[in-house]
Amino acid sequence: MFESAELGHKIDKATYDAEVPGLREDLLNAQFDLAQKAKFPVIILIGGVDGAGKGETVNLLNAWMDPRYIVAHAMGERSDEERERPPMWRFWRALPPKGKIGVFFGSWYTAPIVQRVLGKTKASELNQNIDEINRFEKMLTNEGALIIKFWFHLSKEAQRKRLKSLEKDPKTRWRVTDLDWERFKLYDKFRKVSEHALRATSTAEAPWMVVEGADARYRSLTVGKVLLQAMRKRLDHPVQAATTATAPLQAPIDSLNVFDKLNMAQKVAKKKFDSELEKYQGKLNLLTRDERFRSMSVIALFEGSDAAGKGGAIRRITGALDARHYRIIPVAAPTEEERAQPYLWRFWRHIPRTGRVTIFDRSWYGRVLVERVEKFCSEADWMRAYSELNDFEEQLVKSNTVLVKFWLTITKEEQLLRFKEREKTGFKRFKITEEDWRNRKKWNGYEAAVCDMVDRTSTEIAPWTLVEANDKNFARIKILKTLCQQIESAMKKK
Amino acid sequence: MFESAELGHKIDKATYDAEVPGLREDLLNAQFDLAQKAKFPVIILIGGVDGAGKGETVNLLNAWMDPRYIVAHAMGERSDEERERPPMWRFWRALPPKGKIGVFFGSWYTAPIVQRVLGKTKASELNQNIDEINRFEKMLTNEGALIIKFWFHLSKEAQRKRLKSLEKDPKTRWRVTDLDWERFKLYDKFRKVSEHALRATSTAEAPWMVVEGADARYRSLTVGKVLLQAMRKRLDHPVQAATTATAPLQAPIDSLNVFDKLNMAQKVAKKKFDSELEKYQGKLNLLTRDERFRSMSVIALFEGSDAAGKGGAIRRITGALDARHYRIIPVAAPTEEERAQPYLWRFWRHIPRTGRVTIFDRSWYGRVLVERVEKFCSEADWMRAYSELNDFEEQLVKSNTVLVKFWLTITKEEQLLRFKEREKTGFKRFKITEEDWRNRKKWNGYEAAVCDMVDRTSTEIAPWTLVEANDKNFARIKILKTLCQQIESAMKKK
Repeated sequence: MFESAELGHKIDKATYDAEVPGLREDLLNAQFDLAQKAKFPVIILIGGVDGAGKGETVNLLNAWMDPRYIVAHAMGERSDEERERPPMWRFWRALPPKGKIGVFFGSWYTAPIVQRVLGKTKASELNQNIDEINRFEKMLTNEGALIIKFWFHLSKEAQRKRLKSLEKDPKTRWRVTDLDWERFKLYDKFRKVSEHALRATSTAEAPWMVVEGADARYRSLTVGKVLLQAMRKRLDHPVQAATTATAPLQAPIDSLNVFDKLNMAQKVAKKKFDSELEKYQGKLNLLTRDERFRSMSVIALFEGSDAAGKGGAIRRITGALDARHYRIIPVAAPTEEERAQPYLWRFWRHIPRTGRVTIFDRSWYGRVLVERVEKFCSEADWMRAYSELNDFEEQLVKSNTVLVKFWLTITKEEQLLRFKEREKTGFKRFKITEEDWRNRKKWNGYEAAVCDMVDRTSTEIAPWTLVEANDKNFARIKILKTLCQQIESAMKKK
Repeated sequence: MFESAELGHKIDKATYDAEVPGLREDLLNAQFDLAQKAKFPVIILIGGVDGAGKGETVNLLNAWMDPRYIVAHAMGERSDEERERPPMWRFWRALPPKGKIGVFFGSWYTAPIVQRVLGKTKASELNQNIDEINRFEKMLTNEGALIIKFWFHLSKEAQRKRLKSLEKDPKTRWRVTDLDWERFKLYDKFRKVSEHALRATSTAEAPWMVVEGADARYRSLTVGKVLLQAMRKRLDHPVQAATTATAPLQAPIDSLNVFDKLNMAQKVAKKKFDSELEKYQGKLNLLTRDERFRSMSVIALFEGSDAAGKGGAIRRITGALDARHYRIIPVAAPTEEERAQPYLWRFWRHIPRTGRVTIFDRSWYGRVLVERVEKFCSEADWMRAYSELNDFEEQLVKSNTVLVKFWLTITKEEQLLRFKEREKTGFKRFKITEEDWRNRKKWNGYEAAVCDMVDRTSTEIAPWTLVEANDKNFARIKILKTLCQQIESAMKKK
C-alpha cells in the first residue's frame, strides 16, 4: 500500500504558490456550505509515521480554513474520567456536530496498532479491533458523517533523515525525543502492522489516503485537494438513504412468539413481597458497597409497554442504592445538541464512571421500537440498528459494565385497567396522556417490533430479561433478583 | 443559630405515617408543575454535621419524588479534569437545567468551611469565600434558580451517641471510619466556623434551614415540608423581574469617551509587519511550549465592531499555536441546553484545562453589548451582569488563567468601506449579512454600551485592551504583542 508514497513526490514552489490561493478559497466555500446548508459532520483522521508531517498538517488545515468551525483533538493520555469508561467514550465525546469539522490527531486506530507493534496484543486481537472499527465507521457514515482518513508515510530512510534533520535544527530539536528513536527501531514492525490495518479498513465509504510526507508542499497540496474533493462531492451529491437494501423481517408463520410462552398469571403475595423486597434490596445494597464494585459499573435499562410499571420498578432499585451513586436518565425527545450527533451519542454521554449505576428509563432501543413503529426513521435505519446496538453493548460489557436489560410486559387488558385507573388518581394524572391512548391502538405493531428486538439483541453478553408485569409485586422482585444475580456473577469473574 | 436544633425535636410514628402520603403527593405534583410549566431549576444543598442524616435525606428525597427529575451529586474527590479548572467548574457542570432538581451533597460551602476548620485558611479568607458564595447564589437566583439550603445539626453529645450507635450495628458499622472520629474532635471548631458561614450566607433569597438531625421522622418531615413550601411558593407566585431597581448610567456629559483618545491613524507597513509578525508568533509559540505553561491556561476573548477584523487577528494567533492545544469558540445564539441554564453556563463549559488556549470569538460580554442594545434582556439583567462578569473573570485569573480581552475598534467610515468590499469578494461573501447593516444603524447605541463595558469591566485583574484596528497590520501586531506580554508576566509570577 505504501509503494506510491515512496516515490519522492515533490511540488515546486511556483506550482504550490499558484495553486494555494484558489484551493483555500474553495475550501472556505465548502466549509461555508457545510455549516449553512449541508448539515453533516466531517471527521478527519490523521495517522502515520512520526516526522511525516502529521502535526504540521493539522495546523495547516486550521490555517487554511475558518478555524471557528474546525476543531483539532489531540488524543494523548486519557484523563481519569476517560479511563473509567469504554475506550471509545473519549472519541464519542469529541465527535463534531453537524456542520463542523473535527480533526483527530491520534484516533481509534492508534491504540490497536501501537499495542500490536509493541507485542501487547495478538494478531487475532488486532483483527477484532479492525472489525470493530469498520463497524463503527460504517455506523458513522450511515449517520451521515463524512470520514476522511489520511495516513502520512515515510520510507525508513526518509524517516531517519527527517528525525536527524529535526534534531539538527535548534528550533525543532525539542520535537525529537528518545522515544522517537526507540520507535524508529520498530519501523519495520510498525509498517507491517499499519499496512495490514489500513488495508482492512480502507472501505468504499472511508478509504485511507496514503500521503508521502517527505515534501511539505506535496503533502499539503494533496491533503487540501483530497479534502476539498471529498467535501465537494458530498455537498453537491447528497447521499440518498438506502431504501431497497433491507430484507423483510418475517414474523413466525404460526404467530407463536416469545410472549406467548410467558406465564402472565404469576403473582407474589403481599407478605412474601415484603420479605423478598427487603432481602433483595439489602443484597443489592451490599453488592454496591463491595470492594469489587469500585472497578465496575452497572447500567440497567427499562423498556416496556406503557403503564407496565417501569417507574415503580426503578424506584424499588433506587430505594436500595445510595442516591449519590446513581443516575436515572429518562429518555425523551433528543435535544438540539443531540440531534446534531449520531443516534447513539445521547446515550454515550451518560455512560457512568466506575462504581456508579445508571438507569435508563427507556433507552437506545427506541430506534427499533417507537422510531420503527411510528416511522420516525427509515427502515434501513432501524434495520441496521440491531447490530449497532449489539456493538455498543459489547463495548460496555467489555469495559466492566454490568448491563441488564428489562422488558416489562403486561396484557392488553391489564393495560386498559391501568390507564383508566391513572385517569382517576390525583398524583398519577401526569402519567397518562393522549399519546398513551394512541400508542395502545398500535399494540400489534409494537408487539412485532418487540419480538424482533428480543430475537436480534438478546445476546450472550447482554440478554433481555422479559418480566411478566401484570402483577407489580412479581415484576419488582424478579427485576431486583435478576439485577443482583447479574452483578454477583460479574463479581465472581473478577 | 443552632439553639432550635438542639431541643430534641421528635415526631411520633403515628403523626409521621399520617402526614407522609399527603406530603408525597403534594411534592410529586409540585415536581410535575416544575417540569411542565414553571421551568426554573431547583438547587438543594445538603450540609451539616456527620451522622446527622445527610445521606439518608438525599435518599429519602429521591424515594419520595420522581427520581427521573431529581439528580443527586456527591461532590467528593475532584477528577483531574476538574482539578485543572477553577474550583466552581465542577458545580457549574452539575447545575440542574430548568424544570429539574439538583441535590448537592457537599457543595461550594464544603471546602471553605473544612479548610478553615483544619486551619489551612485564615478567617479573612473564609470571609472572602463567603462573599464569593453570596454573589454566586445571588446570581443564580437572579437567573431564576430556587435555592434551598439544609444544614443538618447535632449537638456534640448527640453526634457522639450517633457515631457510637452506628458503630455498634453490624449493618452500619462500615459507615463510621477513623476519619469520622478524628473530625469529631474538631466538633467545637466546626460548629463555630459553620455557624459563622451560615449566618453570613443566610440571605432573603436563599436562607439556611437548620434541621435537628437526631430524629429521622422529624428530620424527614421537616425537609419535605420546607421543600414543598419553597417550591409551591415559587410556582404559585412567579418572581417578577426587577424593573425599577437600576440606576441610570450617565454617559460623560461632555461626550468625550475612551475611544476619542485613540489614535486611529496608527499603521504598520508591510515590511515591518512581516518581521514583527514572525517575531511575536515565534515568541508566542515558545511561550506555549515553556515548562511553566503546563500549569496555566490562556483565554483570549475578542469583541469588536462588525468587520473590525476579529477573525483575521485570531488566525494570526492560531498560526503560532499547535492546533492540538487550542479551541476557538464562536459565540452565536445559545442552544436549547444552554438556554435551560444560567447565562454564564455556556461559557463555563468551554473553560480550558491547563496547558491549553481557548479563544472566544465574541464572548460573555454579549450580555452588556448586543443583548443590551437589542433589548434581548432586561435592564436589570445587563446591569447586574457587570459584576457577575467580573466575578467570573476573577475566578479564572485566580486559577492560573491568563485572561486577555480585546476590543477591536474601527471608525464608522472604515466599516462602510469594509462592508462594501466584503459584498464584492467571493470567499468573503458569507461574512456580510443583512444583520450587519442593521447593526450599523445602531452605531451610537453600541458605542455607549462599549464605553460602559470598558469602564465597568476593565479591572486590574482583567483589563481590556482597546485595539485601533483601522489598519489590520497594526491591530494584529498589537494583539500578538499584548498576548505575549500578558503570558510572560503571568509566568514571571510563578
